Amino acid sequence: MQIIDDLQTLYKQREKEALRDYFKFLSFQSVSSEQAYRPQTLACMEWLADYLRQMGLDVQIWPTSGHPVIFASYLQAGPDKPTLLIYNHYDVQPVDPIQLWNSPPFEPTIKKGQVYARGAQDNKGQCFYTIQALKIMLERDKSLPINIKLCIEGEEECGSAGLSGILPAKQKELSADYLAIVDVGTPGPSIPAVTLGVRGLVAMDVEVQGSNTDLHSGSHGGVVYNPIHALAEILAALRDPSGKIAVPGFYDDVAPISERERSQFALHFDSEEYQKTFETKATGGEKNLSPLERLWLRPTIEINGLIGGYTGAGFKTVIPAVASAKISCRLVPNQDPKKIGKLVSEFLKKRAPDGVSVRVQIHPGGGPALRANPSSKIVKAFAQAYSEVFQAPCQYTLCGASIPIVAELAAASRSEIVLVGLGLVDDQIHAPNERFGLDRLEKGFLIISRTIEILGQFSN
Amino acid sequence: MQIIDDLQTLYKQREKEALRDYFKFLSFQSVSSEQAYRPQTLACMEWLADYLRQMGLDVQIWPTSGHPVIFASYLQAGPDKPTLLIYNHYDVQPVDPIQLWNSPPFEPTIKKGQVYARGAQDNKGQCFYTIQALKIMLERDKSLPINIKLCIEGEEECGSAGLSGILPAKQKELSADYLAIVDVGTPGPSIPAVTLGVRGLVAMDVEVQGSNTDLHSGSHGGVVYNPIHALAEILAALRDPSGKIAVPGFYDDVAPISERERSQFALHFDSEEYQKTFETKATGGEKNLSPLERLWLRPTIEINGLIGGYTGAGFKTVIPAVASAKISCRLVPNQDPKKIGKLVSEFLKKRAPDGVSVRVQIHPGGGPALRANPSSKIVKAFAQAYSEVFQAPCQYTLCGASIPIVAELAAASRSEIVLVGLGLVDDQIHAPNERFGLDRLEKGFLIISRTIEILGQFSN
Repeated sequence: MQIIDDLQTLYKQREKEALRDYFKFLSFQSVSSEQAYRPQTLACMEWLADYLRQMGLDVQIWPTSGHPVIFASYLQAGPDKPTLLIYNHYDVQPVDPIQLWNSPPFEPTIKKGQVYARGAQDNKGQCFYTIQALKIMLERDKSLPINIKLCIEGEEECGSAGLSGILPAKQKELSADYLAIVDVGTPGPSIPAVTLGVRGLVAMDVEVQGSNTDLHSGSHGGVVYNPIHALAEILAALRDPSGKIAVPGFYDDVAPISERERSQFALHFDSEEYQKTFETKATGGEKNLSPLERLWLRPTIEINGLIGGYTGAGFKTVIPAVASAKISCRLVPNQDPKKIGKLVSEFLKKRAPDGVSVRVQIHPGGGPALRANPSSKIVKAFAQAYSEVFQAPCQYTLCGASIPIVAELAAASRSEIVLVGLGLVDDQIHAPNERFGLDRLEKGFLIISRTIEILGQFSN
Repeated sequence: MQIIDDLQTLYKQREKEALRDYFKFLSFQSVSSEQAYRPQTLACMEWLADYLRQMGLDVQIWPTSGHPVIFASYLQAGPDKPTLLIYNHYDVQPVDPIQLWNSPPFEPTIKKGQVYARGAQDNKGQCFYTIQALKIMLERDKSLPINIKLCIEGEEECGSAGLSGILPAKQKELSADYLAIVDVGTPGPSIPAVTLGVRGLVAMDVEVQGSNTDLHSGSHGGVVYNPIHALAEILAALRDPSGKIAVPGFYDDVAPISERERSQFALHFDSEEYQKTFETKATGGEKNLSPLERLWLRPTIEINGLIGGYTGAGFKTVIPAVASAKISCRLVPNQDPKKIGKLVSEFLKKRAPDGVSVRVQIHPGGGPALRANPSSKIVKAFAQAYSEVFQAPCQYTLCGASIPIVAELAAASRSEIVLVGLGLVDDQIHAPNERFGLDRLEKGFLIISRTIEILGQFSN
């Protein structure tokens, strides 16, 4: 298709410069969940704000309770043209276990067409091709065919509390026709797909306390209730033998999977490929459902961390005073994160054996699940762009992950939402050796540019 | 009693000097389980060997596969007098969690008559009053009434592999009539008691592997079997709802508790005092047995550590590739540590859910339970000394903890065994703020001195 070929030629001319800037963006250690990284997270934010300013956008830095939000806009298309709000984030996940990285996480390294770095995909890679689309179109045309607002936050990986807090005061600035969350993926490298929903999230810390001090397991073994045993028993009780979550009321607001959902979404899951990639089987969750039903259409409960007693080399025959775990639930539409948090918390506490107490701390920053309207203009525009770039019919998928701020942002901006991106399941996001393909940087540029062109043909 | 008063007067004259030397002994960071502490462990050994040499003992340093064993002897009492082999150890447990110590673990601090330091009791305190008894008697009499052999090892806290390895070659040197293990305690500060047995031990590391890399719990939650869930389920299955160990065959060689045992041992357990001291209840283990039955007469399984996923501040929505735990079993007479290790290991592996694999590594250095003969001369001599020092009838107890080398040492030395000491349940051994009372240092001196005098009245 000529129009895509032209965009591609344009990108190739700018690719070297784009990669240089992308690598700079990736070099900032913008780990938002750890206070120690705040200076580097702020440096990342300043660099990105400058970059957008130099592109000709009007840039504001919005202070929040945590890391600032970058708000950048181009409004010269005028009130007759639609306004597209685009969401990204400049913060990244922690890097541990650091010893499992093959190259330093903040020194981007290209191997076989893949860029390896923390944030290479999530979300600096996806943020960067979005910005490149705007930058290159502005350089080419000195204008954009629609109004653009960028909302790039710095706390997505730790709950978005800052952005959430300022949303009520920023409704006017954020108001838009459409909202594109550029932070998701496609089912495979050659399968174009638009995402019509994400799962919600509620996360909590659980602490099991036995005695007031660590005890010798010889002198107290068989006498005291070991809090590690208690924790294991409580955690094991979260799911029944069929893989269903055993917390009473957990599924109360979950609608049964409908035939429409089953047919709307491409429910093919390549078990063999999954096993090859991850060297394990897709055997988690509810046993009577398929992997993609479990991932997209059903809630889950997962233990994300646990620790207790002696974990160093050798052995220490100790019964610790405390053992703890981190638990998160992914939610589907109609499940209220607050209600689920309370149900799980009550379940955990109720199961504390005599002699042991359980404390639960719900993390801030959860959020409900969200679904996009498949017949909205923004979904259709992106679907067309994906089809043209991939030269294949666009599919519709859901995303098992959560972007808890999405629902609040859609409400504050009063816009129709879509979720897009070019992530792949083996990008190792949130894990060692995160990566993103050079081919996908280019495709991302093409999709964003093309979508903006398509939306430019609409009038408001 | 005059004879005890005289010994007490003698101790008081030497107490200041004794405390100075005790504090020096405690200042060495002789943590045997961590290779990093080897230089400090060796320095501790050298200091102690010198100390014994200066007392007039014949000192040998026996190299082993790990830390050396100190062998010190006084044989001038001659072949007509009995020979008492005394076992102690100069190594100590690790100090973590270091932040919970109220004073630095290797800077002994006296508060309200208690000395706080790692090893203050286990075993440097008990080793030290033993040595002081020999030292002060030798200074007073220029001789001892019996032959003494000291075997002081440096790997008790990490499995005694070194001593175990050289025992076959050292049978002649170690041969003795009696063997006193000075490493246990009494049921209360004013209750004299000789210990007639210890539990055996087998310990293992368990590693549960899911995928080949950490995964995002949104993109994989409900799809993959989370190894933390698998670990929790496997560990929870180790005990049935009655608190009994659910591993098939675990109790096969355990004799039922006999009436003789119930009457031989003081089975009173002060639940109120326990709850006051540790702020938890004695609710662990088998529900149909009393706490002391569970502690002394029954085997246990305890999880001593576990770790998996993200355990730092905040949250990371990860499904880790690996989760692991450390498990130990305390054993009663007739249970074979090797057999039990195999049974538990098979149980753990068999319960691995599809998609997850379980590896088990049995730690070296386990050992069987051991019982002393209550009518032996050595038990009677110690019982008399305890009674005289405490001015109360001596009781007989068992010890829930393990000193795995004890059975091997008794066999190598072909001696009759007894276990003695002045530890108390709240000495915080293996925990932060370990302590030992100044009054017990004195009592220990009195008991060892008095026992040696009593044994001196026997001829071989």
